[in-house]
Amino acid sequence: MTKKAVLLLSGGLDSTTVLAIAQSQGFDVYAMSFNYGQRHAHELKAAATIAKQAGVKEHQVFTIDLGGIGGSALTEDAIAVPKDRESEEMSHGIPVTYVPARNTVFLSFALAWAEVLKAYDIFIGVNALDYSGYPDCRPEFIKAFETMANLATAFGVKDDGQRIRVHTPLISMSKAQIVETGTKLGVDYSITTSCYDPTPEGAACGHCDACSLRLKGFRENGMSDSGAYA
Amino acid sequence: MTKKAVLLLSGGLDSTTVLAIAQSQGFDVYAMSFNYGQRHAHELKAAATIAKQAGVKEHQVFTIDLGGIGGSALTEDAIAVPKDRESEEMSHGIPVTYVPARNTVFLSFALAWAEVLKAYDIFIGVNALDYSGYPDCRPEFIKAFETMANLATAFGVKDDGQRIRVHTPLISMSKAQIVETGTKLGVDYSITTSCYDPTPEGAACGHCDACSLRLKGFRENGMSDSGAYA
Repeated sequence: MTKKAVLLLSGGLDSTTVLAIAQSQGFDVYAMSFNYGQRHAHELKAAATIAKQAGVKEHQVFTIDLGGIGGSALTEDAIAVPKDRESEEMSHGIPVTYVPARNTVFLSFALAWAEVLKAYDIFIGVNALDYSGYPDCRPEFIKAFETMANLATAFGVKDDGQRIRVHTPLISMSKAQIVETGTKLGVDYSITTSCYDPTPEGAACGHCDACSLRLKGFRENGMSDSGAYA
Repeated sequence: MTKKAVLLLSGGLDSTTVLAIAQSQGFDVYAMSFNYGQRHAHELKAAATIAKQAGVKEHQVFTIDLGGIGGSALTEDAIAVPKDRESEEMSHGIPVTYVPARNTVFLSFALAWAEVLKAYDIFIGVNALDYSGYPDCRPEFIKAFETMANLATAFGVKDDGQRIRVHTPLISMSKAQIVETGTKLGVDYSITTSCYDPTPEGAACGHCDACSLRLKGFRENGMSDSGAYA
């Protein structure tokens, strides 16, 4: 019997690598993406292409209006995306690209779908190393979410010993290690998109935190990034 | 200085009572309602009327497509709403009206808004007595959510000692106690709506679990329910 897993797929480098990892572990993947008022809707096109190429069981896009809440450079035009920052600078404080409670909201949707599918495994591409400023990328957050998830759902009241598990295979990896892992698993990174501030055609800016980290990851592997840059 | 609170307002008897309680405790209330594919959209009209009458600071309606996930009689026409069940029967197992991970999703949105507003208090009208079959109405779930919430957000990484608190003033009350509390606080229950299966005009069926519990709550207070019934 195959195991089902719900996976959060943004269309970026990290979640695409996680998809390859989940499939390599024998999971049938149910991928979910979110239209949450992010500036860069081409992410969703990338996610759809990736889901199709990987042959996931199902891919659903959920529209939620986190943008109505505001508070992030990724959802509000009035807040500028920072450019050309050094890693050191990125690791201090909570960046303006942090979307309030985003991973909590995304994981809650994943939990709802997992409950309906009777899937006990959720995969998310959070990373505590490069994004140390995002509170909802830390291992202690993931652990607390897992505890809550088992109490929130029918899983927690059944006595079959089955429990929800939130898998975070990238949490301690550097971007270089992520690229290395994905490359070994045959991930085609040219169709992934990471930029916080792309051109209207979807080409990456090459200067935001996400681009800087991504380019560094390829460089440290002696590879060049096959994604499109402006 | 007034304190801000985010409150989940469904338009029903419970959340309307919680709104009165939060205001009686001196909170400026930011109410949120959800259009989540529930069959009875008149709930949202009731919520808007209640929010206006109570003079909340702001009322936002968020559209989310939990219905795309399925699995509940409240979001799927194919699953029938049970009628004329005794309290005893309602308290066994998870009812088909349970919406998978609904309170987790709703509270996650509340958390996101709280973070942006810098509000440290979230109010939700869950009740562990009448809805013992819903895993996400239990005190242990609320406690686990609170722990997770403080790790998920900027609140948890600041050293100001401020922490998110999830208030559940109704959690141990009977429906009769809820009606009694709200009546003392001047709640106008005629504009609230509780029915799982109302007429297209919004009149309550009088027979679903929600109607049965509500009618019992008024009866035990020697009151009649001023809401509209079919």
